[in-house]
Amino acid sequence: MAEIIPIHDHIVVKIEEEEEKTKTGIVLPDTAKEKPQKGKVVAVGSGRILDNGTKVPLEVKVGDTVIFSKYAGTEIKLDDEKYLILSEKEVLAILK
Amino acid sequence: MAEIIPIHDHIVVKIEEEEEKTKTGIVLPDTAKEKPQKGKVVAVGSGRILDNGTKVPLEVKVGDTVIFSKYAGTEIKLDDEKYLILSEKEVLAILK
Amino acid sequence: MAEIIPIHDHIVVKIEEEEEKTKTGIVLPDTAKEKPQKGKVVAVGSGRILDNGTKVPLEVKVGDTVIFSKYAGTEIKLDDEKYLILSEKEVLAILK
Amino acid sequence: MAEIIPIHDHIVVKIEEEEEKTKTGIVLPDTAKEKPQKGKVVAVGSGRILDNGTKVPLEVKVGDTVIFSKYAGTEIKLDDEKYLILSEKEVLAILK
Amino acid sequence: MAEIIPIHDHIVVKIEEEEEKTKTGIVLPDTAKEKPQKGKVVAVGSGRILDNGTKVPLEVKVGDTVIFSKYAGTEIKLDDEKYLILSEKEVLAILK
Amino acid sequence: MAEIIPIHDHIVVKIEEEEEKTKTGIVLPDTAKEKPQKGKVVAVGSGRILDNGTKVPLEVKVGDTVIFSKYAGTEIKLDDEKYLILSEKEVLAILK
Amino acid sequence: MAEIIPIHDHIVVKIEEEEEKTKTGIVLPDTAKEKPQKGKVVAVGSGRILDNGTKVPLEVKVGDTVIFSKYAGTEIKLDDEKYLILSEKEVLAILK
Repeated sequence: MAEIIPIHDHIVVKIEEEEEKTKTGIVLPDTAKEKPQKGKVVAVGSGRILDNGTKVPLEVKVGDTVIFSKYAGTEIKLDDEKYLILSEKEVLAILK
Repeated sequence: MAEIIPIHDHIVVKIEEEEEKTKTGIVLPDTAKEKPQKGKVVAVGSGRILDNGTKVPLEVKVGDTVIFSKYAGTEIKLDDEKYLILSEKEVLAILK
Repeated sequence: MAEIIPIHDHIVVKIEEEEEKTKTGIVLPDTAKEKPQKGKVVAVGSGRILDNGTKVPLEVKVGDTVIFSKYAGTEIKLDDEKYLILSEKEVLAILK
Repeated sequence: MAEIIPIHDHIVVKIEEEEEKTKTGIVLPDTAKEKPQKGKVVAVGSGRILDNGTKVPLEVKVGDTVIFSKYAGTEIKLDDEKYLILSEKEVLAILK
Repeated sequence: MAEIIPIHDHIVVKIEEEEEKTKTGIVLPDTAKEKPQKGKVVAVGSGRILDNGTKVPLEVKVGDTVIFSKYAGTEIKLDDEKYLILSEKEVLAILK
Repeated sequence: MAEIIPIHDHIVVKIEEEEEKTKTGIVLPDTAKEKPQKGKVVAVGSGRILDNGTKVPLEVKVGDTVIFSKYAGTEIKLDDEKYLILSEKEVLAILK
Repeated sequence: MAEIIPIHDHIVVKIEEEEEKTKTGIVLPDTAKEKPQKGKVVAVGSGRILDNGTKVPLEVKVGDTVIFSKYAGTEIKLDDEKYLILSEKEVLAILK
């Protein structure tokens, strides 16, 4: 099976479709404001290179469930599964 | 119960609906200018990474009541409670 | 009474309504250009964090009367007094 | 008499109205391009704080006559005199 | 045959036309969102120069198959083959 | 005669009107693209202050004939001569 | 003959008109996307000054044939030859 390796501060997320109420009790309300999205991290980039050359590892890890802004990332399909490639800057929080 | 862990300089705030006049005497006037919002901080991110790699802890703490600009953040619902995930840059002040 | 503590480089100003001519002889003309505003500083933030992590204290102090640009800041009411929370970058000068 | 103390890299200039031709031979032509303005510096800020925390004193001094771009600054009146508070970045040159 | 040598953080990619389903199982869905593109890296620049003068080598290598945003790069033809010159910042991920 | 002293990275240029073909063989074509301008440098600022406080002297010198973009600078008249005050960033090249 | 000396990170390129197919096999397709341009470098600036004061020499050299984006640079004519003055940032690749 092909492997998607995100570069720098990109991550790959498997999109979790919205059920009315998720096991975790999280509902991403379809309010007037943009509805955020949720998904599981399946791959993370090598990190962000700062102005002084330091490479900072990403805070999100493979396996985390993350919440991110509505229009974040670029969508691709791999073996009929929907994935999103986005920058860690577009991630808001991790759901435990 | 699920836990929302904000990343980097994000924070999670439980939105406090506006009563006419709050116990603290604070009224967020519905003036022509954007009406600021108020809420209690329930989680804070690990801090902001500067260009030189230093991680600066956030100034707001869990339990603080904060005032922030009208269109700040992204709304999510957790167990029927309304929360907002926003960046600390959008926080104006702490109410004691 | 509640206390408003501005964060980082924010300050809280008590707005001084414009009389025709103030004791100090200052008139903020209603010219075509935006009419600047005037007010007394009642609280200042902890300072501005620079790219290298240094925290620079603010130049304006509590008690200063300051002039700032017309659309600066966010308005809130505390015990029927009008206050403005703005960034020090929006302050133009101090009136002695 | 009140004193206007500009902060950081702001300066206060007393606006000199345009006579057809000034003693110095300078005419600020009303060309299609924005007509620059001229005025005498009456107060200068403490300086500009750089990213590394260094404070750089301003190049213009009190008493200098300066030329600045048309829409620069914010206008205020003090004892019936017109002053402008602007940033040193908006100053183009000094007239000797 | 002419050789295209990208400079700094540019790379040259040979565009792979989209078949319904590629050997690797990757389908770049023609969703409402911009359809990302895929191609093989045939040349990479010398690296990105940071503010402090350090030159950071690129993460993508010649031979990698990469996914990049829809409107990335500038197209040129060399011996009837379509190539794209783009910046590494526009690359999202590498496909293994 | 008055003297115009440009500050920081500004320069003062005496505008050279466009003859059909100049002695130097340079013609600034009135093509669809913006027609660049030409002029002689009569004064240069003290230099550009970088983020780390270093002051970098300007590359153009008094006496140089320079080419600069069409809408660069602010125009002033001194003793019936047309001058332009512009930033060195707007200069493209020096003509020898 | 006059000499054009580009400053800082500018370069001067002699524009090569597009034949159907060039000796090198390069065709810059007139696709919907902006058609890139090609030309020979006749002069290069002294280099790019970084935030920390370091001057970085340019990667392109006199004599290189370069590809650059469609709307790059400013056009001038010298002894009936068309030249373009552009910034090295607008160069995509070198053709060998």
